[in-house]
Amino acid sequence: MSDTPVLADSVRITDDAVEILDRRVYPFEVRWVRCTTSEEVATAIERMVTQSSGPLFAATAGLVLAAREARREPPEEAVAHLRQAGARLIATRPTNNHIRDAVQGVLGVVLDGPEAASGTELVEAVTRAAHAHDAAYRERSAALGRHAASLLGDGARVLTHCWADAFLIATVRAARSAGKHLEFVCTETRPYLQGARLTAATLVEMGYRPTLITDGMVAAALADGLADVTLTAADRVTLDGHVVNKVGTLGVALAANAFGVPYHALIDAPDPQARTIDDVVIERRDGDEVLHVLGRRTAAEGVVGYYPAFDATPPRLVTRIVTEHGVYEPSRVRDHFAVSGHTEES
Amino acid sequence: MSDTPVLADSVRITDDAVEILDRRVYPFEVRWVRCTTSEEVATAIERMVTQSSGPLFAATAGLVLAAREARREPPEEAVAHLRQAGARLIATRPTNNHIRDAVQGVLGVVLDGPEAASGTELVEAVTRAAHAHDAAYRERSAALGRHAASLLGDGARVLTHCWADAFLIATVRAARSAGKHLEFVCTETRPYLQGARLTAATLVEMGYRPTLITDGMVAAALADGLADVTLTAADRVTLDGHVVNKVGTLGVALAANAFGVPYHALIDAPDPQARTIDDVVIERRDGDEVLHVLGRRTAAEGVVGYYPAFDATPPRLVTRIVTEHGVYEPSRVRDHFAVSGHTEES
Repeated sequence: MSDTPVLADSVRITDDAVEILDRRVYPFEVRWVRCTTSEEVATAIERMVTQSSGPLFAATAGLVLAAREARREPPEEAVAHLRQAGARLIATRPTNNHIRDAVQGVLGVVLDGPEAASGTELVEAVTRAAHAHDAAYRERSAALGRHAASLLGDGARVLTHCWADAFLIATVRAARSAGKHLEFVCTETRPYLQGARLTAATLVEMGYRPTLITDGMVAAALADGLADVTLTAADRVTLDGHVVNKVGTLGVALAANAFGVPYHALIDAPDPQARTIDDVVIERRDGDEVLHVLGRRTAAEGVVGYYPAFDATPPRLVTRIVTEHGVYEPSRVRDHFAVSGHTEES
Repeated sequence: MSDTPVLADSVRITDDAVEILDRRVYPFEVRWVRCTTSEEVATAIERMVTQSSGPLFAATAGLVLAAREARREPPEEAVAHLRQAGARLIATRPTNNHIRDAVQGVLGVVLDGPEAASGTELVEAVTRAAHAHDAAYRERSAALGRHAASLLGDGARVLTHCWADAFLIATVRAARSAGKHLEFVCTETRPYLQGARLTAATLVEMGYRPTLITDGMVAAALADGLADVTLTAADRVTLDGHVVNKVGTLGVALAANAFGVPYHALIDAPDPQARTIDDVVIERRDGDEVLHVLGRRTAAEGVVGYYPAFDATPPRLVTRIVTEHGVYEPSRVRDHFAVSGHTEES
């Protein structure tokens, strides 16, 4: 039983590279993909070597590589190289804001100062900013975890979809600190099986014995009373309370709503740049991924796969949105940005 | 482009055996499982060598083998053997009535006559009754297909879950005869992937190019307008209008309801012995099946699989129930049994 599962720390910066745990094959293989350039990091993110909150850590680490690449360039060119690398990282995946915020956060600290640095100084500044951004995200996740745990009663049976990553780990840690016992039901989450692999393996590492269902069993499981609360991460929450998350989340929320089970979404903060769902780009991935399981063809020849990576759950199906600042009704999620900010579940 | 796909005729009676197309591996392998005893047929049904309407044909063929086994026994013992074989076949799977009705139908014709037959006479009588039962089912399916096609407009984009087998083939044939073009979206239907394999392969054989989605994408697909009608077979329909079908159907119906898309269920007849959903046994299968895809482990170690093979969709989520007699609102499905019987969609 561990409070620091493997996936809690799945991007490493070494002296000459960034190593990213390959989530496409974990836990069957524990393989680290070694990236020696920021471009290789971007490609790894595009190819789903890492996902959920992994791209945040990969992006800050990618900027460290970019700063090293620009070490011998004069200040202006070094800055241009960093900005270019940042733009490339942001372009990898459009739906989750983590990468955008990480790039803007790190480059903002480093480049908006009184004078542009270069050489070793630049590398050190980017490295410091990257570590600070990572640490701040971990702190926000821990705060979110405490708020999320406040929604879960002792003995709660929690159904979760896909892999809520740092938010789930933080929620489990907070519930455990509060002396609450939890049980888990995970969906397998096709096509990548993040639920069957990442969520299940991490919960097992943390001492649980989760129940696994296929994605089609969510409604039956809730109708049968297998869980009494549903909870997922969100990749994006709009200011009008829409929850954008791994495709399948909408079906979880519909079933939860139909059978009187709460559905909660976890995100460090809503997106102040997304007033409505129309401001969010839903990533469409290669449909061929639907035709295979772990690289093996599972569909008849002659069909076409369709793969929206995310879906949007409207506020009427969301019970509470949990952020680093507190617990909000979806219609009130803008309150996250209020100065007082810390609304607890009443 | 074929009107008689492989799965339309997937149980064969030979001189010394029954051969059943192995639906667990089709279309990747076209393998026929050879059963030389009625017990082997029962085991094949239990092990999911065939499913959907396959067990009906396997059961009538299994009774032919049982009659051959009893060929040298005196009449009373031959009858006892047949009844025992029938009970064994019925016990294989509890949710769908096809096997029960097939056994009762064939044995009723053969054994309720004025005098019990034996020897070659018995074998011939059972074989005739088996063929008659099979032919009657095909006729009922064809009638059902015509009623189902009446619900589909020209150009309809049909989302279907799992494998509706003879009912789907009959619907496609009827729509085609009526000059209607259709498009299809199939769910892959974990854990056995009947949608990705059987439905997809059969629709390709019949000249379509279906779109495949994972089971978790149904709500997103309907929200995105990918289909304008949903349609599945039913394994059982109760007299109060509940639809029991492959697990996942409830999620399809919930999503269809949420996004204003009709959900229709196809079954040759409601079950006169099931007044309410409490009269239906929902089969629970081995949870290990959820942990594997086509025999390969896909889940982390330490988890427990949960596998209800079917779910129950309440009448409020069902638009129309289509039987061999016509098209019914779920609250009026008893009208199927009215003597006049043939209610068409008004």
